Amino acid sequence: MKLNRKSFLKGLALGTISLPLAMRGIMGTGHAQSSSDEGVVSSKKYNWKMVTTWPPNFPILGEACQMFADQVNKMSGGRIDIRVYGGGELVPPLEAFDTVRSGAAEIGSGASYYWAGKAPAAQFFASVPFGMNAQQVNAWIYGGGGIELWEELYRDFGLVPMLGGNTGIQMGGWFNREINSVDDLKGLKMRIPGLGGKVLEKAGGAPVLLAGGEIYTGLERGVIDATEWLGPFHDSLMGFQDIAKYYYTPGWHETGTALEFFINKDQYDRLPADLKAILQNAAGHVNIWCLSMMEAKNAIALAELKEKGTDIRSFPIELIEQLRIHTREVIQEITDQDPFAKRVYESYEAFRKKASDYADITERMFYENIQLS
Amino acid sequence: MKLNRKSFLKGLALGTISLPLAMRGIMGTGHAQSSSDEGVVSSKKYNWKMVTTWPPNFPILGEACQMFADQVNKMSGGRIDIRVYGGGELVPPLEAFDTVRSGAAEIGSGASYYWAGKAPAAQFFASVPFGMNAQQVNAWIYGGGGIELWEELYRDFGLVPMLGGNTGIQMGGWFNREINSVDDLKGLKMRIPGLGGKVLEKAGGAPVLLAGGEIYTGLERGVIDATEWLGPFHDSLMGFQDIAKYYYTPGWHETGTALEFFINKDQYDRLPADLKAILQNAAGHVNIWCLSMMEAKNAIALAELKEKGTDIRSFPIELIEQLRIHTREVIQEITDQDPFAKRVYESYEAFRKKASDYADITERMFYENIQLS
Repeated sequence: MKLNRKSFLKGLALGTISLPLAMRGIMGTGHAQSSSDEGVVSSKKYNWKMVTTWPPNFPILGEACQMFADQVNKMSGGRIDIRVYGGGELVPPLEAFDTVRSGAAEIGSGASYYWAGKAPAAQFFASVPFGMNAQQVNAWIYGGGGIELWEELYRDFGLVPMLGGNTGIQMGGWFNREINSVDDLKGLKMRIPGLGGKVLEKAGGAPVLLAGGEIYTGLERGVIDATEWLGPFHDSLMGFQDIAKYYYTPGWHETGTALEFFINKDQYDRLPADLKAILQNAAGHVNIWCLSMMEAKNAIALAELKEKGTDIRSFPIELIEQLRIHTREVIQEITDQDPFAKRVYESYEAFRKKASDYADITERMFYENIQLS
Repeated sequence: MKLNRKSFLKGLALGTISLPLAMRGIMGTGHAQSSSDEGVVSSKKYNWKMVTTWPPNFPILGEACQMFADQVNKMSGGRIDIRVYGGGELVPPLEAFDTVRSGAAEIGSGASYYWAGKAPAAQFFASVPFGMNAQQVNAWIYGGGGIELWEELYRDFGLVPMLGGNTGIQMGGWFNREINSVDDLKGLKMRIPGLGGKVLEKAGGAPVLLAGGEIYTGLERGVIDATEWLGPFHDSLMGFQDIAKYYYTPGWHETGTALEFFINKDQYDRLPADLKAILQNAAGHVNIWCLSMMEAKNAIALAELKEKGTDIRSFPIELIEQLRIHTREVIQEITDQDPFAKRVYESYEAFRKKASDYADITERMFYENIQLS
């Protein structure tokens, strides 16, 4: 420590920069490269397709894909031209992963929990019930060993993953039934996919699968009693406030869902170093832009919902505790069956514990004692 | 709402993307540009200097500057070569702003509160006591009107600002005196610069100005009773745990300090569109990378400090409330005297209120009920 302190004060180098694996290939030798190239870059042009899991022009999430494409095009002087397809425009949303694997498209956008059926470990890079929030997930993936594991997993599918956004913590959902105790979940027909649905089922609920376009009518007609979606901004656009009695919080099932870009590895590997760096930096920029827009637009939309009298409720704490127990059971089943999922979850959970300890004396105190509305 | 909902479900465009001004110039016409350029970019080379306010090779913050330079070099195929100078290597740290204004260097890195003496409004783009945290500051600047105001302010100095990192919420500092009540602040000699120091003074304390290299000795010899610095990672490197009795939290005075790049506007304006986009995307990427590394390394360093028995204390809530009152007085004095500062603070505060309301039912609940260490 003393040595470090002295070096620090003297302004000496403190060892190497700890960079995610994805960065290493694109760092460091910029000067050498520029001197050999003498500032001239290849004019080879790449025409790429991006297939996404989002509806065409989906606010923020789909816009982030177009922003990525525009920025890459601009930075590369048009050398990578990426045409963005909404889900269903070129292939159905959930075929994006296999489409990029096959090379029929060069890049995709989604959230890695969509690929849990192909690789159970994948979902831990998107969202875990009672998991980390956006700031912690970013810290784990960029700086806590996450990206290295994610790259290892996707390499087997011939893909390169990159963080490309975050929803922030979501809302608990819209309910037409009051939730005052764990018993009120019994028989509850709720549209809630993924791990959240499995957890609800263990608590006695009935998770229902409904595509985005069917939720409004399903909730209006009583086919379902409840639905989760995203946050105030996207939920308002769906019109749920007109047909649901209660808006519950918090979104225990999606505490900070990371969005991703995945690139066909063969295509990526054959790019020159400058274009690889352009893709990586565009993804990083879009990542923070997306979370920031979610935060900004959700804050404004919540104020509007409140003005219109939306009844906002909190889940009882006993219910939260019960769902936490079921979450542990669900995760245990996954990690028991899949060694790589176990490895990823161990890294995730070890980091989460440290980040939570740190948050307990920093961000938690900020929200409890420092910020006042 | 109904129309929106229907358009939404039909996948139609929902109006224009709300983008910060900084983005507008570099978005949108990528295709047109690429077709006229036919993929060929100018080979003109730019040799730039970056002057920073950080000690040479300063962990994370200085590394972020080098990462920015490396990424820009790589993305541009060496067409922008940025040499990074630590504070004092080319000019003293606090001359970075004027050095870039004059054109003697093309780009600088710092935190905008360093320039409060030149423009009182500047500090609101870095950190405000009892202000927003990193996630909220990013949302305000990228998506809540912040960047437009910041660009307007810096334009008068011939500069273009960009977000380039965030420290996250900092710690309250290292104390050799127990703080159990507001009275314990009376006469407290504490190294705490900027607005935090003014607030401490109003509470009866004695803020002391000490350069980074003098703090350790000052605290060891009792010249000061307390000091703030950053968080567990950087504080440990300074060795404060060896000479201070208590480590207090939370950092009410710096709740999420934004770091910046500022570019000489004449130099920026004469860059081709691709290089402008490269600078903007590198800054966005470095912004989220920096916060993520702070979070990751602070979490690890806190665990180490705890293992070594560091005595971590929380400020009493009455003291927090008293400092909040004095903060309002200090800000009132600034906004009374400077109309532009008033405009910026009104935007900041209006956004903060909405973001806090939203956080109350999302992130606050996450830290209180969802995350468990």
